[in-house]
Amino acid sequence: MTADSDTATRAPAVSPKVARRTRGWNTVAILGVGLLGGSVGLGLLQRGLARRIIGIGRRPASLRTAKQRGAVTETTTDLARGVKDADLVIVCTPVDLVANQVVQVRRLCGPNTLVTDVGSTKQSIVAGVDTIESRERTNLRGTFVGSHPLAGGEKGGVKYADPDLFVGRAVVVTPTSSTPAGPLRRTKELWRSLGGRVTQMTAEAHDEAVAAISHLPHLVASALAASTPRGPLDIVGRGWLDTTRVASGDVELWRQIFGDNRERLLGRLDLFMNTLAEFRRVLVERDEPGLRRLLEAGKDIRDAVGN
Amino acid sequence: MTADSDTATRAPAVSPKVARRTRGWNTVAILGVGLLGGSVGLGLLQRGLARRIIGIGRRPASLRTAKQRGAVTETTTDLARGVKDADLVIVCTPVDLVANQVVQVRRLCGPNTLVTDVGSTKQSIVAGVDTIESRERTNLRGTFVGSHPLAGGEKGGVKYADPDLFVGRAVVVTPTSSTPAGPLRRTKELWRSLGGRVTQMTAEAHDEAVAAISHLPHLVASALAASTPRGPLDIVGRGWLDTTRVASGDVELWRQIFGDNRERLLGRLDLFMNTLAEFRRVLVERDEPGLRRLLEAGKDIRDAVGN
Repeated sequence: MTADSDTATRAPAVSPKVARRTRGWNTVAILGVGLLGGSVGLGLLQRGLARRIIGIGRRPASLRTAKQRGAVTETTTDLARGVKDADLVIVCTPVDLVANQVVQVRRLCGPNTLVTDVGSTKQSIVAGVDTIESRERTNLRGTFVGSHPLAGGEKGGVKYADPDLFVGRAVVVTPTSSTPAGPLRRTKELWRSLGGRVTQMTAEAHDEAVAAISHLPHLVASALAASTPRGPLDIVGRGWLDTTRVASGDVELWRQIFGDNRERLLGRLDLFMNTLAEFRRVLVERDEPGLRRLLEAGKDIRDAVGN
Repeated sequence: MTADSDTATRAPAVSPKVARRTRGWNTVAILGVGLLGGSVGLGLLQRGLARRIIGIGRRPASLRTAKQRGAVTETTTDLARGVKDADLVIVCTPVDLVANQVVQVRRLCGPNTLVTDVGSTKQSIVAGVDTIESRERTNLRGTFVGSHPLAGGEKGGVKYADPDLFVGRAVVVTPTSSTPAGPLRRTKELWRSLGGRVTQMTAEAHDEAVAAISHLPHLVASALAASTPRGPLDIVGRGWLDTTRVASGDVELWRQIFGDNRERLLGRLDLFMNTLAEFRRVLVERDEPGLRRLLEAGKDIRDAVGN
């Protein structure tokens, strides 16, 4: 089976309207072609939604891998050359670099370029771009709209890139009050064309939400793995494996995310520790109805979501 | 594809020695035909390792389902009739019933019957059986050897039974100093014939191990789900889904397990809360190297296990 026929089978239906619009991407630039950037590239190319995709990075070897993988059609280590002709630039670098790189891209791209990102936190990125924009508006071109696809995994790198990584996954788009309607719509269409379920919220609401549903679970999984004695590791079942899986994630990436969303993460951690203390109390007091209520509260919320 | 040809493809290789011995099960009785009991029945029958399997339970409707599912060849609600001719009896009822039911079975079965169980805690079961045995040895026949297959899942009931549920899963067998060699060997062969990886330890060591790798992860997943606000549930990604998955498990089953292994679970919970407090400290103090060390400790342990 060729890559094309494979895609024809696996790609989700794209509505004619979305397909017509998004087929308009002539040149896409992806800054940082790892798991997420590579999956955007593969997804767009295999769905016939982009003509050229330029992978931009610092390491020629990584860029070669991305091209061999079919995630980009050309590569460059020169940011100016990479973004010059791009209709769309997707910044897929670590969260603490994104704001500065969005600004650098907007000093070099054309006036109609849409710039978006995939950063796991949004307030510092959106506010960072806003601050620089209000200082040097005349030097900046194009429009930035923040995005966060809640996809990815503990395995990083372009070799795990997947054209269907975003299928069925939530993608949060975080415009500000000054984001123009056109670029916002095009950003949503981009993620929908890759199969994502697009949700719009403010950067603040996003960061509050992901503290609870992404950053705290990562911290908890990591703490659970770290506090497991090595002795019984050879008999762990699916419960331990699932509960700790994300602890295998990239340490530096998550250290940055935790630092960036520190206050909100601490707030969620305190609420979680209160729930644990309540579990501890019902166990110590042999409060059977209390233990049942706590287990039921967890089951209710988990069952509300499904697999 | 028939069930037989399906099994022929999916069943793991059974060594000739194991196959020869375990083909010796003439009559197996399964007390409680839910997910685990049903999976033992399906696994034995589809591998041709038992001639008759008698499902024993209180509810005729559940027993009918088990028979329709192919997990047993006959059914009864009468314990005496069910175990009378059995070479092997597997007690698959909730943990706080197991010890008493093992003793009841041993008042009714033949002198060479092997009795085992699948309970998630072992010390109270093994000690419970031992105590009654030393009191009324003359009334009891057969031999009990405790087992705990670390398989299962949040979906209970015979409809989720799977002949390959135990393939590649750890099964802990917990003999006492007075367990005879023959029944111990036959218990290990039973689980190996179903694809399990058999480990032997004392009931105490087992309960200490599962407090860390099964009971604490369940408590943590439940507390994490319970402390998640409902607002962002529609955008959760795989991290939250994995980390909280086991919280969907049966509340009553887990309440019993927690109660039964209470002291050890509390010990592991305190260690876990210390690790969380350490995470909290490094976040509050913006101790970046400390945060990196904690994330690395979790990753090291998780990476040591794989998927």
